[in-house]
Amino acid sequence: MNNLLIAQSGGPTSAINATIAGAISCAFSSKKVDHVYGAINGIQGVFEEKFVDLKEKLESEKDFRMLCQTPSAALGSCRFKLGDLKKDKEQFETIIKIFRKHDIKYFIYTGGNDSMDTVDKLSAYCKENGIDDIVVVGAPKTIDNDLTEIDHCPGFGSAAKYIATTFAELERDCHVYDTKAVTIVEVMGRNAGWLTAASALARVAGGKGPDLIYLCEPVFSIPKFLEDIKKKMEDHPDIIVAVSEGIKDENGVYISEHVQAGAKDAFGHSIISGAGSVLENIVRKELGCKVRSVELNLMQRCGAHVASGTDIEESRMLGMKACQCALDGETGVMAIMTRVSNTPYEVTFGSVPVSKVANKEKKVPMEWIHENGNDVKQELIDYMLPLIQGEVSVMYENGIPKHFYLY
Amino acid sequence: MNNLLIAQSGGPTSAINATIAGAISCAFSSKKVDHVYGAINGIQGVFEEKFVDLKEKLESEKDFRMLCQTPSAALGSCRFKLGDLKKDKEQFETIIKIFRKHDIKYFIYTGGNDSMDTVDKLSAYCKENGIDDIVVVGAPKTIDNDLTEIDHCPGFGSAAKYIATTFAELERDCHVYDTKAVTIVEVMGRNAGWLTAASALARVAGGKGPDLIYLCEPVFSIPKFLEDIKKKMEDHPDIIVAVSEGIKDENGVYISEHVQAGAKDAFGHSIISGAGSVLENIVRKELGCKVRSVELNLMQRCGAHVASGTDIEESRMLGMKACQCALDGETGVMAIMTRVSNTPYEVTFGSVPVSKVANKEKKVPMEWIHENGNDVKQELIDYMLPLIQGEVSVMYENGIPKHFYLY
Repeated sequence: MNNLLIAQSGGPTSAINATIAGAISCAFSSKKVDHVYGAINGIQGVFEEKFVDLKEKLESEKDFRMLCQTPSAALGSCRFKLGDLKKDKEQFETIIKIFRKHDIKYFIYTGGNDSMDTVDKLSAYCKENGIDDIVVVGAPKTIDNDLTEIDHCPGFGSAAKYIATTFAELERDCHVYDTKAVTIVEVMGRNAGWLTAASALARVAGGKGPDLIYLCEPVFSIPKFLEDIKKKMEDHPDIIVAVSEGIKDENGVYISEHVQAGAKDAFGHSIISGAGSVLENIVRKELGCKVRSVELNLMQRCGAHVASGTDIEESRMLGMKACQCALDGETGVMAIMTRVSNTPYEVTFGSVPVSKVANKEKKVPMEWIHENGNDVKQELIDYMLPLIQGEVSVMYENGIPKHFYLY
Repeated sequence: MNNLLIAQSGGPTSAINATIAGAISCAFSSKKVDHVYGAINGIQGVFEEKFVDLKEKLESEKDFRMLCQTPSAALGSCRFKLGDLKKDKEQFETIIKIFRKHDIKYFIYTGGNDSMDTVDKLSAYCKENGIDDIVVVGAPKTIDNDLTEIDHCPGFGSAAKYIATTFAELERDCHVYDTKAVTIVEVMGRNAGWLTAASALARVAGGKGPDLIYLCEPVFSIPKFLEDIKKKMEDHPDIIVAVSEGIKDENGVYISEHVQAGAKDAFGHSIISGAGSVLENIVRKELGCKVRSVELNLMQRCGAHVASGTDIEESRMLGMKACQCALDGETGVMAIMTRVSNTPYEVTFGSVPVSKVANKEKKVPMEWIHENGNDVKQELIDYMLPLIQGEVSVMYENGIPKHFYLY
C-alpha cells in the first residue's frame, strides 16, 4: 500500500483549503496512491494519529468546490515546531514509525515559514537515515506574503482583496460627514507590510483610498505622523490611515508596546492594545478632533466570501503541483509560483529546496515604499493588482456562504 | 416649476443609496416633477444650498445599479436636529425660503428616528402655517432595525447578512486549534440588540454559530458570563461569544463604562474601549486562557459587497413608495413595509404618520430572547432569516466593487 497524508499548519487563510483540494484531487486521480488521509491539527495530529480518510469525505466535484470556498484550515492547524534533528531524534523516529504503520509514502504539509521548517527537518532526517521511500513536500500558504523563493503566497491575494474592498467601503463611510475626523485602520503584519500595502488597491476602482499608508518596514515617527495628518486635513476633513500592526520606532520597539507600556485598567491590570488604538489616543490628545481606530482583525484572513478568484485558482494549482512533486519522488521541496509576465499576468509552477524557504522572511522592498514613508509606489500596486482579480462564485445556503467540514 | 429634493441623514448603511435610487427613478419618470435635486450632507446642505442636479449625475440604468451597490450615503449625511417649532421658528422659515427659491415642492428625507424628527417638525410647521404646496416625506433606513411601525428597517438585512457571514467565517478561524480559547465579538447596538441577534444566523448553513449571544436588552451579569463560558468549554475548547456594544449591568450602566472607568494610559489619559475589550480583560484575568476581542466596527454597516438582495430590493421599493407618497400629496408620512406572510415571505408597502415613528425605538422583544439571556429563540431567527436572502450581483472594476459618486 502506498498512501498519501496531507496536513495543514500555521495561521488560517481563505485559500489554504483550495491548496489541499488541489493536492487531494491530484492524489485521487493517481494510480500511485491507494488511500489519501488527512491529519487533524497538523503535525500534532500525526503524533496523535488523528487521521481521516479523505475519500470518504470528498465525494463529488461540488464537495471540492465547497472546500475551496471554505476559509481557514479544514483539517485544523497547530503551532508545533519539530525539535533538533540530533537532540530530539525520537520525535522523528516516532513520526516515521507512524508513517510505516499507516503505509504513508507521501506527506504533504501546507503552511508558512514555520511549517516549511517541519518539511525541511523531516526530509533531512529521512535523507540522513537512508529512508528513501518516504517523500516529504511543502505547499506554501500565508496571508503575510512573506515567503521567499515564491512570487507571492497563496492566501495573500484573497486577504488583499478583502482589505482593498473594505478600505473602499470605509472610505465611503468616512466621507459622509463634512467634519474633521481621523479613522485609523490597523492591518495585520508584524514584520512585513504587504497586507497594509494592499489598502492602496482601494484606489483602483475610482475611490481615493487611504490618505496615508504606513508599512512596518520604514521607521515610524509619531511627530511626523501627526504632521502628515495635519497636512492632509488642509485638503479635506475626513482622513483615513492604514497602519501595519508592526510599526516600530527608531529603536525597533513596536509602537503598540512602548507607548502603552504603562496602561492599566481599573483593577491595575495591564491593557493590551494594538498600534491603531495607541495612535488613536495620540491623535485625540494632540489634534483634538474626532478619531477612531478600526482593526481588520481575524476577518482579513478568513473573509472567503470575497476571495480572489486568481488566488483560489493558483492555490489549487499549487496543491496539485505539490502532489505531483511528491508522486515524482521530489522530497524536501516546496511548490512555488514564478511570475513570467505581468501584462498579461502569467505564472508558472515549479519547486525549490525547502531549506531555501524555511524560517526566512520576505519584506516589502524599501524601493517600493514612498520616500516619505507614508504611501506605496506604483511598482508595488502593479505587483499586487493581478493577485486580487476575479471573483469566486460562492455557493450560498439560507443566505450565507456554505462551508465544508472535514472533521 | 415643481422640483423634488432628496437628502440623507444619520449613520451610513449598505442600502440607503438603494432607497434614494428608488425615489429618484420614480421622480424621473413622473410628469409632476421638473428637476430632481440632491442636498449634500442632509438638512445641513439645505441650509447651505449645496444642491446637485441628479439628472446630470444619473444617466443610465447602470448608474442606478452602481448607486444601489454603493455603501453609505452617496449624498452625504449630517447629525443636525431641527430646533423647537416655536422657539426656533426662523430655522423653519429659512428652509421654506430656500425651498421657494428653488421651487422645491417635494422633499424626501431618508434616515433613522432622528431624521424622522426632521420630517415630523418640518411637515408640522407647514401645516401650522398653511403651507399646503410643500410635501415632506420620510424614507426609513437604519442598520439598527429600531424604527417602530415598520416590520424591519432597510439596511438591517444587509448588515445582518454581513454579520452572519462573518461569524460563520470566524467560527472556522477559531476552530482550527484544539486549545482553549475565547473569542469575543462586539456588534453594534447601544440600545437594541437586533444586530447582535443576527450572529445567530451563522447557524443556518451548517455551522454551529456563536456559542453565546448577549443582546443589550437583558441585564448583563459578569459572573454569569464567566460561568456560561466555563460550561461551554466542558463541551469544546474554542468558544465564540457575540455581545452587543450596549450590554448593561443591573443598574443600567454600560459594561464598557463602569469596569474600564479608571483605565489610564502611560500618560495618564483615560482609555476608551468597548464592551468586548472590557470582557476580554476580565476573561484573561479570571479564566487565564487565550482570549481576544474583535469589533465588527464600521465594516458591519458598509459591507455592501455582501449586501442582502432582499434588503436592496426592498430599500429601492421603499424609496419609490416614499416618492409616490410625495407625488400624491401625503405630507408628514414615512413609507413603511408590512410583513403579510413569513412562509412564503411577502411584504406590502404603505405609509404611516411620521409622528408615530420620530424619536421612538423598537427593541428586541424579551420573549424572543432565551431565558438564560445568552442566546436567541427560534422566533427571532425566523423573523430575521428572510431578510438576508439573495445576493447582489456586484459590479467589480480591477478586482474591487465599483462605487458611484454623486458629489
